[in-house]
Order: sequence, then C-alpha cells, then structure tokens
Amino acid sequence: MDAEQLRENAHKMVDFIADYYKSIESFPVLSQVEPGYLRKIIPDSAPNQPESLQNVLDDIQAKIIPGVTHWQSPNFFGYFPSNSSIAGFLGEMLSGGLNIVGFSWVTSPAATELETIVLDWLAKMLKLPEDFLSSGQGGGVIQGTASEAVLVVLLAARDKALRMFGRNSIGKLVVYASDQTHSALRKACQIGGIHAENCRLLKTDSSTNYALSPEVLTEAISQDTASGLVPFFLCATVGTTSSTAVDPLLALGKIAKDNKMWFHIDAAYAGSACICPEYRHYLNGVEEADSFNMNAHKWLLTNFDCSVLWVKDRSALIQSLSTNPEYLKNKASEGNMVVDYKDWQIPLGRRFRSLKLWMMLRLYGQENLLNYLRNHIELAKYFEELVSVDQRFEIVVPRTFSLVCFRLLPPQGDEDCINKMNRDLLEVVNSTGKIFLSHTILSGKYILRLAVGAPLTEGRHISAAWKVLQDEATTLLEQYMKCFWEGDDECST
Amino acid sequence: MDAEQLRENAHKMVDFIADYYKSIESFPVLSQVEPGYLRKIIPDSAPNQPESLQNVLDDIQAKIIPGVTHWQSPNFFGYFPSNSSIAGFLGEMLSGGLNIVGFSWVTSPAATELETIVLDWLAKMLKLPEDFLSSGQGGGVIQGTASEAVLVVLLAARDKALRMFGRNSIGKLVVYASDQTHSALRKACQIGGIHAENCRLLKTDSSTNYALSPEVLTEAISQDTASGLVPFFLCATVGTTSSTAVDPLLALGKIAKDNKMWFHIDAAYAGSACICPEYRHYLNGVEEADSFNMNAHKWLLTNFDCSVLWVKDRSALIQSLSTNPEYLKNKASEGNMVVDYKDWQIPLGRRFRSLKLWMMLRLYGQENLLNYLRNHIELAKYFEELVSVDQRFEIVVPRTFSLVCFRLLPPQGDEDCINKMNRDLLEVVNSTGKIFLSHTILSGKYILRLAVGAPLTEGRHISAAWKVLQDEATTLLEQYMKCFWEGDDECST
Repeated sequence: MDAEQLRENAHKMVDFIADYYKSIESFPVLSQVEPGYLRKIIPDSAPNQPESLQNVLDDIQAKIIPGVTHWQSPNFFGYFPSNSSIAGFLGEMLSGGLNIVGFSWVTSPAATELETIVLDWLAKMLKLPEDFLSSGQGGGVIQGTASEAVLVVLLAARDKALRMFGRNSIGKLVVYASDQTHSALRKACQIGGIHAENCRLLKTDSSTNYALSPEVLTEAISQDTASGLVPFFLCATVGTTSSTAVDPLLALGKIAKDNKMWFHIDAAYAGSACICPEYRHYLNGVEEADSFNMNAHKWLLTNFDCSVLWVKDRSALIQSLSTNPEYLKNKASEGNMVVDYKDWQIPLGRRFRSLKLWMMLRLYGQENLLNYLRNHIELAKYFEELVSVDQRFEIVVPRTFSLVCFRLLPPQGDEDCINKMNRDLLEVVNSTGKIFLSHTILSGKYILRLAVGAPLTEGRHISAAWKVLQDEATTLLEQYMKCFWEGDDECST
Repeated sequence: MDAEQLRENAHKMVDFIADYYKSIESFPVLSQVEPGYLRKIIPDSAPNQPESLQNVLDDIQAKIIPGVTHWQSPNFFGYFPSNSSIAGFLGEMLSGGLNIVGFSWVTSPAATELETIVLDWLAKMLKLPEDFLSSGQGGGVIQGTASEAVLVVLLAARDKALRMFGRNSIGKLVVYASDQTHSALRKACQIGGIHAENCRLLKTDSSTNYALSPEVLTEAISQDTASGLVPFFLCATVGTTSSTAVDPLLALGKIAKDNKMWFHIDAAYAGSACICPEYRHYLNGVEEADSFNMNAHKWLLTNFDCSVLWVKDRSALIQSLSTNPEYLKNKASEGNMVVDYKDWQIPLGRRFRSLKLWMMLRLYGQENLLNYLRNHIELAKYFEELVSVDQRFEIVVPRTFSLVCFRLLPPQGDEDCINKMNRDLLEVVNSTGKIFLSHTILSGKYILRLAVGAPLTEGRHISAAWKVLQDEATTLLEQYMKCFWEGDDECST
C-alpha cells in the first residue's frame, strides 16, 4: 500500500469506470451469457506471481462486463432501481479508502456520529415524528438492506413479547402483513423462529389496489386471539414490490396499538418519494409506527448498500442485539456516553456508510433531490400514457409512484393464454438487450413491471423502451393470431 | 451521473485518498475527540442547495478526519487488523462503480460466477477438503462478517435439528464452544432463538493456552444428553480474539461426528495465515467440519467487508434461507442451472464483492501473500522478543500468529493492582495518539494485545511502539512506586 502507487492505479480505475459509464448504452442491459460461462475462461487457481493491472482491466472488459446486468443503464427498468451517483460513488470510495470498522463509537467516532446526524437530517426531510430522532429515546441506523432492517425490528419485537409471555410462547407469536409484503418478512420470521403458519400474509385484491384492508386484519387478529395466539408484529408497506401498493398506515397503526403489537413500516422503495411534499401524505400514520425503513440505495442516489431504519425505542433493539465482550470494552461505551451501532444490527463490523449519504445530501441539496424524484415519476406517467393509448395493452393497477404495471391484452384467449403471451413478451424484450424489465403476478395475472429510477434515464429512453415493447408485441401478436386462425388454441408460439 | 463529471470528481477523490495515506502517520492513531464533538460543528439539517465538492472535502479534512481512528495507520495494533490494499481498494471502486445488486444469478451472472470461482481458488490455497469446493455438494460464499457466517450456519444446523426432533424442541438444542469463542456466537444463538442457558461456553485456562479441551466437551455433552437435551452445534476457533488460541480440530471434530452435531470452524483472523504451509497444520481436522469461515478483510489485503464461508452441504443453508417470490423468478433459477446467493445469506441484496478478492489474488499472487503474512508474524515475534527481555513485562500466553499478549508485571502489588496498572498503561499509551492497542482479560488478568497486521507496518513501527510502551511504563511505574513507598496501597495514580 504505497500512496503513490495507489494514486497511479486508482486514477486508472477512475478512467475505466468513467469510460464504462460513457459506453453503458452500448451493452445489452440484461447479460446474455449462459450459466457457467465464466469458468470456461478463467484459470482454475490463483496465480503464483503478481499480474499487471492492465491485464486485469483487460479481463474485466472482456470477461466480466459481458456477465454484468447493467443496473446503471438508462434502459434498466427491472425490479426497483439501484441508484449510483457521483456523490454516492465518491462516498463509497472514501469509505473504502479509510477502511475503518465502526462497530463501536471509539473505533471511529466520526462514523457513528455522522450516521446519527445524517439520519436525523433525513428524518426531518421525511417529516418523521420527533420520536424517531436521536434526541429522544429513538434514532436512526444504517442497515445493509431492508431484509436486515425488518429482521432486527422483528427480533426486538419478538424478545419484548417473549419477556412478557415467557420464552416458551414462541409458538404462539403471530406476525401480520399483506400478501404483497416483501419476502424478507417471511425470511425474518424463519430466522427468528416464528412458526411458518403464524406468519399471516393476508389476502389483498384489486378492490384495494392490493393494499391491506384494516377489516381483514382486524378479523384475523380476532380469530387468532380467540385461539389463544399472541399477535405481536404488524408490517405495513408503502410501495409494495409487485405494484407499489400503499397500506393504510393510519388505520393499521390504530389496530396495532389496540393490540399492543410492534408496528413496522417498510417503505424500502417509495420512502424516497415521500420527501416530496405532494407524496408525504402516504406516510400519514407513521406517527403510530415503532419503526420505519427506506432504502436510500434504491432511489435516493446513494450507492448500494444503504438501508435506513428508524426506531422509536432504541433500547428494544439494543436489548436484543447487544454483546459486550471484554476485548471490545472501552471507557466511552462503559460510561454510556455514546452510541455503539454494533448493538443495533446483526453483524459486528460495519463500514463508514454515512459518508455517502452525507455527501449525496450535500452535493445535490434537497431541492435537486425533489426534482430528481419528480422527474422519474413524470417519466413513469409518460410511459403510463403511452401504454394506455395503445388498445392492445392494459394498465393493470393504477400507477402511484414510478412503477407502471401493464400487460398485453389481446382480443382473444383465456387468462392462461394471456399470461403466456406476456411471459413470452418479457422474454423476447429482455433478450433484445435493448431494455430490461421484470414481472410479477397479481390475482393470477402475469404483469410486466416497468420501474423508472435509473439516474441516467431520460424521456428518450422511455420512448425507445415503448417502441421496443410495441414492436415485439406486434410480432408476437401476429404469431399468436396466426395460431388462433389455424385453430391452435394451445397458445404455443 | 455524467461520465465526465464523474471522472473529474473521482480523480480529485483519488488524490484526496492518496494524500491521506501519505500523511497517515501524522494523525493520532486513536481519535482523540470527545463524545458529541461532531454535532457541534455540523448543521442541523441537509442543505437546500448543492454544495461544492471542495467544500465537502475541506469539511472531511477538518471535521471528519479528527474523528477517525486510523485502522490503516502502521501504528494501529488494536483488535485485529482491517486490511486495505491497492488491489482491494480498486476492487471496491469497481464494485461501487458498477453498483449492481447480485441477489440472483441473472442480476449479474459474473458476480455470482466469479464468487464461486474465486472461493474455489481460496479453498485450494487453504487446502480445504474437496467437499468444500463448488464441484460437489458444497461451496463458498462471501458474507459480510464472521457474525453473519456463524449465524447462517447455526440457522442451517438448527433447522436440520428441528426437522429431526420437531420444532417445539428448540428449547432443548444445545450449542458448544469455548469461553474464548467470539461474542458473535452468543448473538447468533440469541437471534436464532436458542435458549441462553443452552449456549455452553466451556471454561478454558492457561493449561491448554485457552484452547477448548476435548475432555471438557465430552463431559458437557454427556451431561446434557443425560438430561434429555440435544447437542446440535459445535463451534471451534482457530485463533481466538483474546489470544489467538487454536482449538484441537481433529479431536473436536470426532466428538461432533459421534454426536451428530454441526461442526463449524471460526478462523476469522488466523485463517489467512493457514495459506502458509508452515501454519496449515492448525487446520488439520477441518475435514471433519461442516463449515469453515475466515475473514479476508482482516489480514488478507481485501478491503472490508469480505468474510469467506464454505459449507459441505449447501442445501442445508438454502433450506433455511431461501425465498422465491414471483417478482424474482427467472428461467435460470427455475431451471436449477445456477447459484442464487440470496439463498445463502441473511440479506436479499448483495454487492459484487468477489471483484476485490479476485483482484487481490491476481495483483499480488500467492507467493507475495505468503511473504506478506510471514513478515507480520516475524514482526510480532520481534516484538515478543523485545517484551520478553524487559523484566518489567511478561508475555502472558505464547504467541502463535501475529498477536502478542503481554502485560506490565511490577515487583509489588496484588492482581487487582497489576490489572489497574495495565489498564492505566493502555489508557496513557493510546492517549498519546502514537500507537493504538486494545486489551482483553484472561483468567482474571488484564492483558495488552498488540496485533501486527496493518499493511504499512514495518520493523521501525514495532521498535517505536515498544519505545512508547517502555517510556509510559517507566513513568507509570515511578508513580506507582512512589505510591507504594508512601504506603498508599490503593494503587491510585
């Protein structure tokens, strides 16, 4: 680790990465390699002697890049976005450069304190209730992912319940969410030992736009209570993964309170939008929540990973997750003068992730961030309009943020046939490499999801994406119609 | 995200980081700030308008760096090292630049495949049994930390046991390790719902150099089995955190096998050394293990985080940790043609961490890595020799790798007094800012730990560290002796 060698090589890497961004539209968005492609072109063991950086960079270009699905491409519309920005990237660089391990305050006071401060900043931008700020009993912490966020609060809630009802009552604890909740909740239950059949994923449908109905929840809780079970955790979602449904926080929060349940809000994707005043109302009811989570790494220009969690009662987290071995003891911690974030998370070690969040907020400023988010939402609206004027397509659920859920709806064919056609459409569209979309299923309908949110996406990319979809749909429909005319109703292309 | 702006700004950041490394010895190793220092000098909310990069860099220099404990300083000897290297840093840069989220193969095939391949490389360097390679039923995966590694294998073992004995038997499951095991194990038990009193941390002492005794383990298992409990998990450590004790793997592995327990080896720190043929014997017995973990981010020149875990039966992990929501389904995964690492870990999202490991191995080569590790061990040996010729000091446990455990041993004073003196010595030494060490307690003795392993550490830093320790010890002893002469045996300085 010689500083001048670092300088020289890192400058080369900067150029490599800048060139990557310059040429990013030239790659197929979805990697087109076959499973096992890399083993065929990489040696079986590590070299004995050092190789040159140029060799390695050449290999990255020739062997790695073809195996990359380009999340930063302006034509990436799959899943939810994973934002990279100059500020986020610089923050990552600095964090990697300092390479501290900030488990306890003393191991780098700036890492802990900056995190606390910047999470207060962000809480204020979201107009979260004061209880979530670090000045009271609560506070914020950066987790790696929303999966970890929901896990740590589930554990805190579980342990609180077990302290009340006895630890042998674990088989009685019940978790509630809609059937649209992220799979991370079920995984958290599995990890925390909550019995699978006590994980109630309550049915939603188009009548509520796939939001959890308070009536359905109340009914489920009543039944469970009557059976001697213990409702202890409710997870509501603001912006579900399939269709960005928004659960009615205010009504759900009241039910959680009445039943003394921990109320968690997962706003992993849509939380970012709620810094815009016109979307903030989707968080009404957050004052009833015990914890609130959003992913700055999705749509808020902060490179992965940076999932932001706030709790009202930090002591509940700490009771579940703290450790205090002799070799980590120190005056500041023993004196209760500081936060030790190791006790707010699963791992011990942690990176200096607040740097990128802080730099993002300072280098862009709040006003630009609002414009950034609004622009994506406008682009999604534009796409929604394009789809809705083409009568061959259908918007399946109304758009709320920057995700459009749509499908091809041919004049003929049953639901299975329509689903197959949409599956085929997704397959051919993605295999062009021109754009990448992903899918979901709602009420049995196979749906294409176009999520706007890559920082480089502009109006022209939306238009081009729509053209790809239209063209492929035309070809596909012709094939299908030929099928129909020939009386072959198996829908095979 | 304009490529040319990225280029310009990232070049500035490279210079900032290279300059940091150039001047790293000028900073106090342990940050000398007071709790709450940062809030006083940072605004209460995020700016509305963007600020310049220069402003932010100035603030980093003036406000953040003073709050950093410099893990990369050649004078950092605390805890265990957290290696940064040029290759590791470049790998981090590239990973941050591509900013993909590699939960499933399809989201970037190269991320998954490179990880599998490079972990096979590393397994071969460690001469792990073939069962751990990806060609069979096993394979490797990069976790964030050793805490996550032990958690995921504990969950796999727990669920295997619950499938066998019924899920209501969780209160009967017993975990074994020595009392020197890392606190992460106890935390994993707490997360996984293993009852606290079923977490057996068996007593060790100086007679085994703090390694777990097979006899003690056998006795504990017999007692538990007789009481109707179910032994299911044994964690052995190669290189404990307090003193780098090495548990006798071969004997322990046999016991685990006889009792049908999952056998995990935590070699978080010392695993790296075992790529040297002369240290490989410490892993003898690994062929009995179900899982093996080491942290490349500690001592193997790979920037944090990169904790490498191998398992013999990947299906056990996957059974505990897989999720398969519709919105993540894809042809490659459905066809069982690929690895989806989301099912091998707690979070869903994951960074492209194999890049840095791959680049580290290629840019340094195996031979240089052996020399790198051997050099640190030689430096630790040198320090051990310096300590052992000064009769005011004592080496408390024999050195095995690059950690030296020692203490000041004055001619007078009881154990409490000696402990206090060593606590004071650590305090004054660290507050000089010249070096940073941490401590532990073994058999009631307060011990100073000097861990060699920062990439920049050379012989001259060891000599200088020793001089700081000697000088501060001289001053301290004078104060204490004055105390004694004046008949004040409260040992207060």
